[in-house]
Amino acid sequence: MKILLTNDDGVYAKGIEVLHKHLSKDNEVIVVAPETEQSAVGHAITLTDPLLVKSVHRNGIFFGHAVKGTPADCVKLAINELVEQQPDLVVSGINLGANVGINVIYSGTVSAATEGAILGVPSIAISINTFKNPNFEPAARFARLLAHQVNKYGLPPHTSLNVNVPAIPESKIKGVRVTRQGITRFVESFDRRVDPRENVYYWQCGSTPPLEEDDDTDACALARDYISITPIHHDLTNYDFLRSLRSWSFTDTPD
Amino acid sequence: MKILLTNDDGVYAKGIEVLHKHLSKDNEVIVVAPETEQSAVGHAITLTDPLLVKSVHRNGIFFGHAVKGTPADCVKLAINELVEQQPDLVVSGINLGANVGINVIYSGTVSAATEGAILGVPSIAISINTFKNPNFEPAARFARLLAHQVNKYGLPPHTSLNVNVPAIPESKIKGVRVTRQGITRFVESFDRRVDPRENVYYWQCGSTPPLEEDDDTDACALARDYISITPIHHDLTNYDFLRSLRSWSFTDTPD
Repeated sequence: MKILLTNDDGVYAKGIEVLHKHLSKDNEVIVVAPETEQSAVGHAITLTDPLLVKSVHRNGIFFGHAVKGTPADCVKLAINELVEQQPDLVVSGINLGANVGINVIYSGTVSAATEGAILGVPSIAISINTFKNPNFEPAARFARLLAHQVNKYGLPPHTSLNVNVPAIPESKIKGVRVTRQGITRFVESFDRRVDPRENVYYWQCGSTPPLEEDDDTDACALARDYISITPIHHDLTNYDFLRSLRSWSFTDTPD
Repeated sequence: MKILLTNDDGVYAKGIEVLHKHLSKDNEVIVVAPETEQSAVGHAITLTDPLLVKSVHRNGIFFGHAVKGTPADCVKLAINELVEQQPDLVVSGINLGANVGINVIYSGTVSAATEGAILGVPSIAISINTFKNPNFEPAARFARLLAHQVNKYGLPPHTSLNVNVPAIPESKIKGVRVTRQGITRFVESFDRRVDPRENVYYWQCGSTPPLEEDDDTDACALARDYISITPIHHDLTNYDFLRSLRSWSFTDTPD
Protein backbone atom coordinates (compact mmCIF):
# COMPACT_ATOMS: atom_id res chain seq x y z
CA MET A 1 0.00 0.00 0.00
CA LYS A 2 0.91 3.62 -0.44
CA ILE A 3 0.36 5.27 2.95
CA LEU A 4 0.27 9.00 3.73
CA LEU A 5 1.51 9.43 7.29
CA THR A 6 0.84 12.56 9.34
CA ASN A 7 0.23 13.62 12.94
CA ASP A 8 -0.47 16.64 15.14
CA ASP A 9 2.56 16.46 17.44
CA GLY A 10 4.79 17.55 14.54
CA VAL A 11 7.15 15.82 12.12
CA TYR A 12 9.93 15.58 14.75
CA ALA A 13 7.78 13.69 17.29
CA LYS A 14 8.73 10.20 18.39
CA GLY A 15 5.25 8.78 17.72
CA ILE A 16 5.38 9.38 13.98
CA GLU A 17 8.91 7.98 13.79
CA VAL A 18 7.94 4.66 15.41
CA LEU A 19 4.81 4.44 13.27
CA HIS A 20 6.93 5.08 10.15
CA LYS A 21 9.30 2.28 11.14
CA HIS A 22 6.49 -0.27 11.44
CA LEU A 23 4.33 0.80 8.49
CA SER A 24 7.29 0.96 6.09
CA LYS A 25 8.06 -2.73 6.67
CA ASP A 26 5.63 -3.63 3.92
CA ASN A 27 4.22 -0.34 2.61
CA GLU A 28 5.43 2.75 0.79
CA VAL A 29 5.12 5.52 3.39
CA ILE A 30 5.08 9.25 2.59
CA VAL A 31 5.35 11.60 5.58
CA VAL A 32 3.68 15.04 5.37
CA ALA A 33 3.31 16.47 8.87
CA PRO A 34 3.19 19.81 10.68
CA GLU A 35 6.56 21.45 11.32
CA THR A 36 5.60 22.13 14.95
CA GLU A 37 3.19 20.73 17.52
CA GLN A 38 -0.45 21.45 16.60
CA SER A 39 -2.31 19.86 19.50
CA ALA A 40 -5.90 21.01 20.03
CA VAL A 41 -6.15 22.74 16.67
CA GLY A 42 -9.23 20.65 15.82
CA HIS A 43 -10.17 20.80 12.17
CA ALA A 44 -8.51 24.17 11.53
CA ILE A 45 -7.26 24.91 8.03
CA THR A 46 -4.94 27.77 7.04
CA LEU A 47 -6.30 30.23 4.48
CA THR A 48 -4.70 33.53 5.50
CA ASP A 49 -1.05 32.41 5.79
CA PRO A 50 1.22 30.71 3.29
CA LEU A 51 2.01 27.03 3.86
CA LEU A 52 5.81 26.75 3.88
CA VAL A 53 7.10 23.26 3.05
CA LYS A 54 10.53 21.92 4.01
CA SER A 55 12.25 18.57 3.51
CA VAL A 56 13.11 16.69 6.68
CA HIS A 57 16.02 14.24 6.80
CA ARG A 58 16.86 11.68 9.47
CA ASN A 59 20.31 10.07 9.52
CA GLY A 60 20.95 11.67 6.15
CA ILE A 61 17.93 9.96 4.56
CA PHE A 62 14.80 11.79 3.35
CA PHE A 63 12.09 11.30 5.97
CA GLY A 64 9.29 13.56 4.74
CA HIS A 65 7.80 17.03 4.31
CA ALA A 66 7.34 19.50 7.18
CA VAL A 67 4.44 21.91 6.61
CA LYS A 68 3.92 25.18 8.47
CA GLY A 69 0.25 24.39 8.96
CA THR A 70 -2.31 22.21 10.68
CA PRO A 71 -2.83 18.44 10.33
CA ALA A 72 -5.83 19.04 8.02
CA ASP A 73 -3.65 21.37 5.88
CA CYS A 74 -1.03 18.60 5.63
CA VAL A 75 -3.53 16.06 4.33
CA LYS A 76 -5.08 18.49 1.84
CA LEU A 77 -1.68 19.68 0.57
CA ALA A 78 -0.25 16.16 0.38
CA ILE A 79 -3.15 14.67 -1.57
CA ASN A 80 -3.56 17.68 -3.87
CA GLU A 81 0.08 18.57 -4.48
CA LEU A 82 2.89 16.67 -2.80
CA VAL A 83 1.95 13.03 -3.49
CA GLU A 84 1.86 11.95 -7.11
CA GLN A 85 -0.80 9.25 -6.87
CA GLN A 86 -3.73 9.23 -4.45
CA PRO A 87 -2.56 7.23 -1.40
CA ASP A 88 -4.39 4.00 -0.45
CA LEU A 89 -4.55 5.01 3.20
CA VAL A 90 -3.98 7.98 5.51
CA VAL A 91 -2.59 7.23 8.99
CA SER A 92 -2.40 9.97 11.64
CA GLY A 93 -0.41 9.54 14.86
CA ILE A 94 0.73 8.18 17.13
CA ASN A 95 -0.71 10.93 19.33
CA LEU A 96 0.50 11.46 22.87
CA GLY A 97 -2.72 11.34 24.90
CA ALA A 98 -6.06 9.64 24.24
CA ASN A 99 -8.60 11.16 21.85
CA VAL A 100 -11.92 9.94 23.21
CA GLY A 101 -15.37 11.34 23.97
CA ILE A 102 -16.20 14.96 23.28
CA ASN A 103 -12.46 15.71 23.21
CA VAL A 104 -12.34 14.20 19.71
CA ILE A 105 -13.64 17.50 18.31
CA TYR A 106 -10.50 19.31 19.53
CA SER A 107 -8.15 16.72 18.10
CA GLY A 108 -5.77 17.53 15.28
CA THR A 109 -4.88 13.83 15.06
CA VAL A 110 -8.47 12.80 14.40
CA SER A 111 -9.15 15.75 12.08
CA ALA A 112 -6.29 14.64 9.80
CA ALA A 113 -7.99 11.25 9.43
CA THR A 114 -11.41 12.87 8.94
CA GLU A 115 -9.88 15.04 6.22
CA GLY A 116 -8.41 11.98 4.47
CA ALA A 117 -11.86 10.37 4.53
CA ILE A 118 -13.48 13.52 3.11
CA LEU A 119 -10.95 13.43 0.26
CA GLY A 120 -11.90 9.82 -0.47
CA VAL A 121 -8.99 7.98 1.18
CA PRO A 122 -9.60 5.38 3.94
CA SER A 123 -8.04 6.80 7.10
CA ILE A 124 -6.93 5.84 10.59
CA ALA A 125 -6.12 8.07 13.59
CA ILE A 126 -4.16 6.43 16.41
CA SER A 127 -3.45 7.69 19.93
CA ILE A 128 -1.87 6.27 23.06
CA ASN A 129 -3.40 6.86 26.48
CA THR A 130 -0.49 8.61 28.20
CA PHE A 131 1.53 11.81 28.06
CA LYS A 132 4.53 10.39 29.91
CA ASN A 133 7.19 7.76 29.12
CA PRO A 134 5.28 6.40 26.15
CA ASN A 135 6.01 3.02 24.62
CA PHE A 136 4.75 3.48 21.07
CA GLU A 137 5.60 -0.06 19.91
CA PRO A 138 2.27 -1.82 20.73
CA ALA A 139 0.23 0.98 19.09
CA ALA A 140 2.49 1.00 16.01
CA ARG A 141 2.18 -2.77 15.64
CA PHE A 142 -1.58 -2.53 15.92
CA ALA A 143 -1.70 0.32 13.38
CA ARG A 144 0.12 -1.90 10.89
CA LEU A 145 -2.33 -4.76 11.47
CA LEU A 146 -5.32 -2.43 11.16
CA ALA A 147 -3.91 -0.90 7.96
CA HIS A 148 -3.99 -4.40 6.45
CA GLN A 149 -7.56 -4.97 7.64
CA VAL A 150 -8.75 -1.64 6.24
CA ASN A 151 -7.15 -2.57 2.93
CA LYS A 152 -8.87 -5.97 3.04
CA TYR A 153 -12.38 -4.98 4.19
CA GLY A 154 -12.59 -1.33 3.03
CA LEU A 155 -14.36 1.53 4.80
CA PRO A 156 -17.67 3.24 3.90
CA PRO A 157 -17.41 6.64 2.17
CA HIS A 158 -16.31 9.56 4.37
CA THR A 159 -15.56 7.25 7.30
CA SER A 160 -12.31 6.99 9.25
CA LEU A 161 -11.30 4.94 12.29
CA ASN A 162 -10.33 6.58 15.57
CA VAL A 163 -8.08 4.18 17.50
CA ASN A 164 -6.96 4.54 21.12
CA VAL A 165 -4.46 2.19 22.70
CA PRO A 166 -4.02 1.66 26.48
CA ALA A 167 -0.59 2.61 27.81
CA ILE A 168 0.07 -0.72 29.49
CA PRO A 169 2.40 -3.63 28.69
CA GLU A 170 1.23 -5.23 25.44
CA SER A 171 0.56 -8.59 27.12
CA LYS A 172 -1.99 -6.91 29.42
CA ILE A 173 -4.09 -5.44 26.61
CA LYS A 174 -7.31 -7.47 26.73
CA GLY A 175 -8.33 -7.14 23.10
CA VAL A 176 -10.14 -4.78 20.75
CA ARG A 177 -13.55 -3.15 21.19
CA VAL A 178 -15.53 -1.34 18.50
CA THR A 179 -17.06 1.61 20.31
CA ARG A 180 -19.04 4.82 19.92
CA GLN A 181 -17.78 8.27 20.87
CA GLY A 182 -18.57 8.88 24.55
CA ILE A 183 -18.99 12.06 26.56
CA THR A 184 -15.61 12.36 28.27
CA ARG A 185 -14.45 15.94 27.98
CA PHE A 186 -11.70 18.38 28.81
CA VAL A 187 -12.78 20.47 31.82
CA GLU A 188 -10.91 23.71 31.55
CA SER A 189 -9.82 26.19 34.14
CA PHE A 190 -8.24 29.58 33.60
CA ASP A 191 -5.23 31.03 35.40
CA ARG A 192 -5.56 34.84 35.41
CA ARG A 193 -2.38 36.92 35.24
CA VAL A 194 -1.32 40.51 34.59
CA ASP A 195 1.62 41.24 32.29
CA PRO A 196 4.30 43.90 33.07
CA ARG A 197 2.31 46.42 31.01
CA GLU A 198 -0.82 45.72 33.06
CA ASN A 199 -2.64 43.76 30.39
CA VAL A 200 -4.81 40.89 31.63
CA TYR A 201 -4.25 37.45 30.18
CA TYR A 202 -5.28 33.88 31.00
CA TRP A 203 -3.63 30.50 30.64
CA GLN A 204 -6.13 27.83 29.69
CA CYS A 205 -5.48 24.68 31.64
CA GLY A 206 -7.64 21.79 32.64
CA SER A 207 -7.92 18.07 32.72
CA THR A 208 -10.12 15.23 31.53
CA PRO A 209 -11.65 13.70 34.65
CA PRO A 210 -12.86 10.10 34.27
CA LEU A 211 -16.62 9.96 33.78
CA GLU A 212 -19.33 7.40 34.32
CA GLU A 213 -19.59 6.21 30.74
CA ASP A 214 -21.78 3.61 29.10
CA ASP A 215 -20.17 0.27 28.43
CA ASP A 216 -19.98 0.76 24.66
CA THR A 217 -17.96 3.99 24.59
CA ASP A 218 -14.36 4.69 23.60
CA ALA A 219 -13.32 5.93 27.06
CA CYS A 220 -14.85 2.90 28.78
CA ALA A 221 -13.02 0.42 26.54
CA LEU A 222 -9.75 2.21 27.20
CA ALA A 223 -10.34 2.30 30.96
CA ARG A 224 -10.89 -1.47 30.86
CA ASP A 225 -7.59 -2.12 29.04
CA TYR A 226 -9.03 -2.67 25.55
CA ILE A 227 -7.93 -1.01 22.34
CA SER A 228 -10.87 1.17 21.24
CA ILE A 229 -11.85 1.64 17.58
CA THR A 230 -14.59 4.17 16.77
CA PRO A 231 -15.83 4.75 13.21
CA ILE A 232 -15.94 8.52 12.65
CA HIS A 233 -17.58 10.62 9.95
CA HIS A 234 -18.20 14.33 9.50
CA ASP A 235 -21.95 14.47 10.08
CA LEU A 236 -22.80 16.48 13.20
CA THR A 237 -26.59 16.45 12.68
CA ASN A 238 -28.58 15.53 15.79
CA TYR A 239 -31.06 13.31 13.92
CA ASP A 240 -33.05 12.49 17.06
CA PHE A 241 -34.06 16.13 17.40
CA LEU A 242 -35.07 16.83 13.78
CA ARG A 243 -38.74 15.92 14.24
CA SER A 244 -39.28 17.97 17.41
CA LEU A 245 -37.55 20.95 15.86
CA ARG A 246 -39.88 20.74 12.84
CA SER A 247 -42.83 21.30 15.19
CA TRP A 248 -41.50 24.69 16.30
CA SER A 249 -43.13 27.86 15.04
CA PHE A 250 -40.75 30.24 13.31
CA THR A 251 -43.30 32.94 12.56
CA ASP A 252 -43.93 34.30 16.06
CA THR A 253 -42.45 37.71 16.50
CA PRO A 254 -41.09 39.03 19.78
CA ASP A 255 -42.21 42.61 18.90
CA MET B 1 -32.41 36.59 28.71
CA LYS B 2 -28.73 36.90 29.32
CA ILE B 3 -27.01 36.23 25.98
CA LEU B 4 -23.31 35.58 25.35
CA LEU B 5 -22.52 36.87 21.87
CA THR B 6 -19.44 35.79 19.92
CA ASN B 7 -18.32 35.17 16.33
CA ASP B 8 -15.34 34.10 14.24
CA ASP B 9 -14.92 37.21 12.08
CA GLY B 10 -13.66 39.11 15.13
CA VAL B 11 -15.10 41.62 17.58
CA TYR B 12 -14.79 44.49 15.09
CA ALA B 13 -16.86 42.78 12.36
CA LYS B 14 -20.09 44.33 11.17
CA GLY B 15 -22.08 41.10 11.61
CA ILE B 16 -21.65 40.96 15.39
CA GLU B 17 -22.49 44.67 15.68
CA VAL B 18 -25.82 44.30 13.87
CA LEU B 19 -26.63 41.15 15.85
CA HIS B 20 -25.84 43.01 19.09
CA LYS B 21 -28.19 45.85 18.11
CA HIS B 22 -31.11 43.49 17.57
CA LEU B 23 -30.54 41.07 20.45
CA SER B 24 -30.03 43.86 22.98
CA LYS B 25 -33.52 45.23 22.30
CA ASP B 26 -34.91 42.86 24.90
CA ASN B 27 -31.94 40.90 26.26
CA GLU B 28 -28.82 41.54 28.26
CA VAL B 29 -26.00 40.90 25.76
CA ILE B 30 -22.37 40.24 26.71
CA VAL B 31 -19.86 40.26 23.85
CA VAL B 32 -16.75 38.05 24.12
CA ALA B 33 -15.23 37.60 20.68
CA PRO B 34 -11.86 37.02 19.00
CA GLU B 35 -9.68 40.10 18.58
CA THR B 36 -8.98 39.21 14.95
CA GLU B 37 -10.60 37.15 12.20
CA GLN B 38 -10.53 33.42 12.99
CA SER B 39 -12.23 31.95 9.95
CA ALA B 40 -11.65 28.24 9.27
CA VAL B 41 -10.14 27.58 12.70
CA GLY B 42 -12.74 24.87 13.32
CA HIS B 43 -12.90 23.76 16.93
CA ALA B 44 -9.35 24.83 17.79
CA ILE B 45 -8.57 25.81 21.38
CA THR B 46 -5.45 27.60 22.60
CA LEU B 47 -3.34 25.77 25.18
CA THR B 48 0.21 26.87 24.36
CA ASP B 49 -0.31 30.65 24.21
CA PRO B 50 -1.77 33.05 26.75
CA LEU B 51 -5.25 34.44 26.06
CA LEU B 52 -4.92 38.23 26.20
CA VAL B 53 -8.21 40.02 26.94
CA LYS B 54 -8.95 43.67 26.07
CA SER B 55 -12.00 45.87 26.52
CA VAL B 56 -13.57 47.14 23.32
CA HIS B 57 -15.53 50.40 23.22
CA ARG B 58 -17.80 51.73 20.51
CA ASN B 59 -18.84 55.39 20.53
CA GLY B 60 -17.32 55.63 24.00
CA ILE B 61 -19.58 52.87 25.37
CA PHE B 62 -18.31 49.45 26.51
CA PHE B 63 -19.09 46.96 23.76
CA GLY B 64 -17.35 43.81 24.96
CA HIS B 65 -14.19 41.74 25.45
CA ALA B 66 -11.69 41.03 22.68
CA VAL B 67 -9.78 37.76 23.22
CA LYS B 68 -6.56 36.81 21.46
CA GLY B 69 -7.89 33.33 20.79
CA THR B 70 -10.35 31.22 18.85
CA PRO B 71 -14.17 31.28 19.02
CA ALA B 72 -14.14 28.13 21.20
CA ASP B 73 -11.62 29.82 23.54
CA CYS B 74 -13.95 32.84 23.81
CA VAL B 75 -16.92 30.72 24.87
CA LYS B 76 -14.88 28.71 27.39
CA LEU B 77 -13.24 31.82 28.87
CA ALA B 78 -16.51 33.77 28.97
CA ILE B 79 -18.52 31.08 30.72
CA ASN B 80 -15.71 30.10 33.13
CA GLU B 81 -14.31 33.53 33.94
CA LEU B 82 -15.68 36.67 32.31
CA VAL B 83 -19.44 36.30 32.79
CA GLU B 84 -20.71 36.24 36.35
CA GLN B 85 -23.78 34.06 35.90
CA GLN B 86 -24.11 31.26 33.34
CA PRO B 87 -25.77 32.84 30.27
CA ASP B 88 -29.18 31.61 29.09
CA LEU B 89 -28.03 31.43 25.48
CA VAL B 90 -24.89 31.61 23.34
CA VAL B 91 -25.25 33.24 19.90
CA SER B 92 -22.40 33.11 17.38
CA GLY B 93 -22.33 35.27 14.24
CA ILE B 94 -23.40 36.69 11.95
CA ASN B 95 -20.80 34.94 9.81
CA LEU B 96 -19.93 36.19 6.36
CA GLY B 97 -20.46 33.12 4.17
CA ALA B 98 -22.68 30.07 4.60
CA ASN B 99 -21.70 27.22 6.93
CA VAL B 100 -23.34 24.20 5.36
CA GLY B 101 -22.47 20.60 4.51
CA ILE B 102 -19.06 19.17 5.31
CA ASN B 103 -17.75 22.76 5.58
CA VAL B 104 -19.39 22.96 9.01
CA ILE B 105 -16.40 21.09 10.49
CA TYR B 106 -14.05 23.97 9.50
CA SER B 107 -16.31 26.64 10.95
CA GLY B 108 -15.27 28.74 13.90
CA THR B 109 -18.81 30.19 14.02
CA VAL B 110 -20.42 26.79 14.45
CA SER B 111 -17.72 25.56 16.86
CA ALA B 112 -18.49 28.46 19.22
CA ALA B 113 -22.11 27.30 19.38
CA THR B 114 -21.08 23.64 19.77
CA GLU B 115 -18.83 24.71 22.64
CA GLY B 116 -21.69 26.56 24.32
CA ALA B 117 -23.83 23.42 24.04
CA ILE B 118 -21.04 21.26 25.52
CA LEU B 119 -20.88 23.66 28.48
CA GLY B 120 -24.63 23.27 29.01
CA VAL B 121 -25.89 26.48 27.42
CA PRO B 122 -28.42 26.42 24.53
CA SER B 123 -26.61 27.85 21.51
CA ILE B 124 -27.21 29.24 18.03
CA ALA B 125 -24.75 29.82 15.17
CA ILE B 126 -25.94 32.12 12.38
CA SER B 127 -24.41 32.77 8.95
CA ILE B 128 -25.40 34.68 5.84
CA ASN B 129 -24.89 33.20 2.37
CA THR B 130 -22.63 35.87 0.88
CA PHE B 131 -19.17 37.35 1.23
CA LYS B 132 -20.02 40.63 -0.54
CA ASN B 133 -22.23 43.63 0.28
CA PRO B 134 -24.00 41.83 3.10
CA ASN B 135 -27.31 43.02 4.51
CA PHE B 136 -27.23 41.56 8.02
CA GLU B 137 -30.64 42.91 9.07
CA PRO B 138 -32.85 39.94 8.04
CA ALA B 139 -30.49 37.43 9.69
CA ALA B 140 -30.26 39.52 12.86
CA ARG B 141 -34.06 39.81 13.08
CA PHE B 142 -34.39 36.04 12.62
CA ALA B 143 -31.73 35.39 15.27
CA ARG B 144 -33.75 37.44 17.74
CA LEU B 145 -36.93 35.50 16.95
CA LEU B 146 -35.10 32.17 17.20
CA ALA B 147 -33.54 33.18 20.52
CA HIS B 148 -37.07 33.59 21.89
CA GLN B 149 -38.15 30.21 20.51
CA VAL B 150 -35.11 28.44 21.99
CA ASN B 151 -35.94 30.04 25.32
CA LYS B 152 -39.57 28.90 25.01
CA TYR B 153 -39.06 25.31 23.74
CA GLY B 154 -35.55 24.48 25.03
CA LEU B 155 -32.92 22.35 23.29
CA PRO B 156 -31.80 18.80 24.11
CA PRO B 157 -28.49 18.43 25.99
CA HIS B 158 -25.34 19.15 23.97
CA THR B 159 -27.34 20.38 20.97
CA SER B 160 -27.01 23.69 19.16
CA LEU B 161 -28.71 25.15 16.08
CA ASN B 162 -26.79 25.97 12.92
CA VAL B 163 -28.70 28.66 11.02
CA ASN B 164 -28.00 29.84 7.46
CA VAL B 165 -29.87 32.76 5.91
CA PRO B 166 -30.12 33.41 2.15
CA ALA B 167 -28.59 36.72 1.01
CA ILE B 168 -31.68 37.95 -0.78
CA PRO B 169 -34.23 40.67 0.00
CA GLU B 170 -36.15 39.64 3.13
CA SER B 171 -39.48 39.57 1.29
CA LYS B 172 -38.12 36.91 -1.06
CA ILE B 173 -37.14 34.47 1.70
CA LYS B 174 -39.65 31.63 1.34
CA GLY B 175 -39.64 30.44 4.94
CA VAL B 176 -37.72 28.17 7.30
CA ARG B 177 -36.63 24.57 6.78
CA VAL B 178 -35.28 22.23 9.45
CA THR B 179 -32.51 20.33 7.67
CA ARG B 180 -29.68 17.85 8.11
CA GLN B 181 -26.04 18.59 7.37
CA GLY B 182 -25.37 17.87 3.67
CA ILE B 183 -22.21 17.00 1.77
CA THR B 184 -21.28 20.36 0.24
CA ARG B 185 -17.60 20.93 0.72
CA PHE B 186 -14.71 23.31 0.13
CA VAL B 187 -12.68 22.04 -2.82
CA GLU B 188 -9.20 23.37 -2.32
CA SER B 189 -6.46 24.17 -4.77
CA PHE B 190 -2.89 25.16 -4.00
CA ASP B 191 -0.91 27.98 -5.60
CA ARG B 192 2.80 27.04 -5.48
CA ARG B 193 5.32 29.86 -5.06
CA VAL B 194 9.00 30.31 -4.22
CA ASP B 195 10.08 32.99 -1.77
CA PRO B 196 13.16 35.25 -2.30
CA ARG B 197 15.23 32.79 -0.24
CA GLU B 198 14.13 29.92 -2.48
CA ASN B 199 11.83 28.32 0.04
CA VAL B 200 8.72 26.68 -1.43
CA TYR B 201 5.33 27.70 -0.09
CA TYR B 202 1.70 27.29 -1.09
CA TRP B 203 -1.41 29.44 -0.78
CA GLN B 204 -4.48 27.36 -0.06
CA CYS B 205 -7.40 28.57 -2.10
CA GLY B 206 -10.54 26.94 -3.34
CA SER B 207 -14.25 27.24 -3.60
CA THR B 208 -17.45 25.47 -2.63
CA PRO B 209 -19.03 24.33 -5.88
CA PRO B 210 -22.79 23.70 -5.72
CA LEU B 211 -23.56 19.99 -5.41
CA GLU B 212 -26.48 17.75 -6.17
CA GLU B 213 -27.86 17.52 -2.66
CA ASP B 214 -30.85 15.69 -1.25
CA ASP B 215 -33.92 17.79 -0.62
CA ASP B 216 -33.59 17.75 3.16
CA THR B 217 -30.09 19.24 3.47
CA ASP B 218 -28.88 22.63 4.64
CA ALA B 219 -27.34 23.60 1.30
CA CYS B 220 -30.48 22.63 -0.61
CA ALA B 221 -32.76 24.74 1.61
CA LEU B 222 -30.45 27.71 1.17
CA ALA B 223 -30.26 27.28 -2.61
CA ARG B 224 -34.08 27.30 -2.69
CA ASP B 225 -34.28 30.59 -0.75
CA TYR B 226 -35.21 29.12 2.64
CA ILE B 227 -33.58 29.82 5.97
CA SER B 228 -31.93 26.53 7.03
CA ILE B 229 -31.79 25.35 10.65
CA THR B 230 -29.76 22.21 11.44
CA PRO B 231 -29.57 20.74 14.96
CA ILE B 232 -25.90 20.02 15.66
CA HIS B 233 -24.20 17.96 18.37
CA HIS B 234 -20.67 16.74 18.94
CA ASP B 235 -21.07 13.04 18.18
CA LEU B 236 -19.08 12.03 15.10
CA THR B 237 -19.72 8.27 15.44
CA ASN B 238 -20.79 6.58 12.21
CA TYR B 239 -23.44 4.41 13.87
CA ASP B 240 -24.43 2.71 10.59
CA PHE B 241 -20.98 1.15 10.36
CA LEU B 242 -20.63 -0.11 13.95
CA ARG B 243 -22.06 -3.54 13.28
CA SER B 244 -19.97 -4.28 10.18
CA LEU B 245 -16.83 -3.11 11.92
CA ARG B 246 -17.55 -5.49 14.80
CA SER B 247 -17.35 -8.40 12.34
CA TRP B 248 -13.74 -7.59 11.43
CA SER B 249 -10.91 -9.74 12.72
CA PHE B 250 -8.28 -7.85 14.69
CA THR B 251 -6.04 -10.82 15.41
CA ASP B 252 -4.62 -11.50 11.95
CA THR B 253 -1.02 -10.58 11.70
CA PRO B 254 0.64 -9.30 8.55
CA ASP B 255 3.91 -11.01 9.47
